Amino acid sequence: MPHSYSQLLQIIEHSIKSNPFKGKPENLYAPLNYILGLGGKRIRPVLALMSAELFSDSIENAIPAAMTVELFHNFSLIHDDIMDKAPLRRGKSTVHTKWDGPTAILSGDLMLVKSYEMLLRCEQKYWPSLLRIFNKTASEVCDGQQMDMNFETQESVSESDYLVMIKLKTSVLLGCSLMMGAIVADADDSNCTELYNFGVNLGMGFQLMDDYLDAFGTPELVGKQPGGDILSAKKTVMFIHTQKHEPNKLKSIVEDSSLTNQIKIESAKSLFIQTGADEYLKNIATNYFNQAVQNLKHISVNDFRKLELEKLLVYLQTRTK
Amino acid sequence: MPHSYSQLLQIIEHSIKSNPFKGKPENLYAPLNYILGLGGKRIRPVLALMSAELFSDSIENAIPAAMTVELFHNFSLIHDDIMDKAPLRRGKSTVHTKWDGPTAILSGDLMLVKSYEMLLRCEQKYWPSLLRIFNKTASEVCDGQQMDMNFETQESVSESDYLVMIKLKTSVLLGCSLMMGAIVADADDSNCTELYNFGVNLGMGFQLMDDYLDAFGTPELVGKQPGGDILSAKKTVMFIHTQKHEPNKLKSIVEDSSLTNQIKIESAKSLFIQTGADEYLKNIATNYFNQAVQNLKHISVNDFRKLELEKLLVYLQTRTK
Repeated sequence: MPHSYSQLLQIIEHSIKSNPFKGKPENLYAPLNYILGLGGKRIRPVLALMSAELFSDSIENAIPAAMTVELFHNFSLIHDDIMDKAPLRRGKSTVHTKWDGPTAILSGDLMLVKSYEMLLRCEQKYWPSLLRIFNKTASEVCDGQQMDMNFETQESVSESDYLVMIKLKTSVLLGCSLMMGAIVADADDSNCTELYNFGVNLGMGFQLMDDYLDAFGTPELVGKQPGGDILSAKKTVMFIHTQKHEPNKLKSIVEDSSLTNQIKIESAKSLFIQTGADEYLKNIATNYFNQAVQNLKHISVNDFRKLELEKLLVYLQTRTK
Repeated sequence: MPHSYSQLLQIIEHSIKSNPFKGKPENLYAPLNYILGLGGKRIRPVLALMSAELFSDSIENAIPAAMTVELFHNFSLIHDDIMDKAPLRRGKSTVHTKWDGPTAILSGDLMLVKSYEMLLRCEQKYWPSLLRIFNKTASEVCDGQQMDMNFETQESVSESDYLVMIKLKTSVLLGCSLMMGAIVADADDSNCTELYNFGVNLGMGFQLMDDYLDAFGTPELVGKQPGGDILSAKKTVMFIHTQKHEPNKLKSIVEDSSLTNQIKIESAKSLFIQTGADEYLKNIATNYFNQAVQNLKHISVNDFRKLELEKLLVYLQTRTK
């Protein structure tokens, strides 16, 4: 039987805890272990292992590939937090807050180098395919983050531009995780490509649901105050849709300094519902999830092996946190 | 006949100019071409090509290896300039000044990814050796930069710690450049190692002479105001030596707010001369250059092929800028 999500999560946690980074100067290496120790869903490495398990009964070989994407993801978290001036990550101080900006830049750089080192622990015969998709993805994630930053000061952003941005910033790394897991489990090219597309579509649905929950999630479940995107006037699909139907109304709510944050958030949410932005977004998300279902169908392995990926897909589509 | 430094420099400049980075968003890719266009000695890629030419009559195959180290070096320049809050680089605005901090972080990240992409343009059979030395070096350069930053706030720094720092921050990349050039020209392991050590020793001498010229170089030749290290009380070999022989004198000069910068610099230089710090430093540098000469002798190729590396060594030892 394939491992469940929580079993795979344990394998990843164990791998992280039993291989802490060691090196000098200590204040360069401590941030690496710190951010990796903050936990999280570990969705990327879990996807890599699930993907490997579609084709192989042993996931041992896929652990370095899984860790590669987790290290890369953590590199991007360290640097994104500096760029976004975020004080907290998972309720704890971000690296640049706990240490300082320069240390955060450099430990992020080191984490990126370490992700390449980790990739090279995979069997050498897989290097060309692994490096091809990993380099492409790494470069695209940078593109996506820059687009995201550019959008902040851009007067208007089209829905398609926003979708391209989240694809590059988030979804391609999920596709890459699945593809790398498949590669080291000797999947053929067609299955690798299908898994990549599955990951990208899953990632799109995942990020869109994240945007939905940022507005409509309950704080107790989400674990953070919702409404962050509303207060920063982030040009999400709901924002763009609402702008189209009620031009400037959203902006005037967010910019009205006589309103409390809570009232701004509630008013924006009412406006989202009024213009149908929430349902509009969920529709788009559903389309991506449905495409992911199709991708999964096309993967030529026994259906029982696909069970965990199917369960994950349903979970991501229906989650409330 | 092997190519001269200036011929190899032209080859590198041509390669940079004819392969500009293209991609979107534009403000992420423009900094890559901008910093690569600022020029410089290009010592790292030139070393890679010289190294390849010891063993091969064609340097065509070594260009991707040479470009890999140049891209990596430029990644480190972009990020170091942010960390050092440097407004200028080669007399032009630094990336984070011309654009902004977040764009500089991200374009540096992208440049690092691009350096790996460039490495993979080398013939696949060389990947394991190339990636091994490149990853090791990349990681060490981060260590060295963090040590350098830590030293700024550290009460005292030993001479041996300083030498370890410049080895990691600067010298190993010179060693790596030479080794990568040798690898893609099919040099055997013993020659590769000897060239690596040659590069590290050359790099140590190079950096120590840089420290010397920062104090004693003439502004017209060096192209920048000298004395930067003195004013920032950087714990160089001359600083450490002087501290040992005249404790606190140097510190009191630098911290005396009644003195102009020019007087501080002149007083510090007098103190260097008085304690013999300048000669002490030159001695250490000479030892490294002499070790490099020995390394070069041990490389088993015809002596006439070594001519350009010998000339470069003499130039670096006797340069006044």
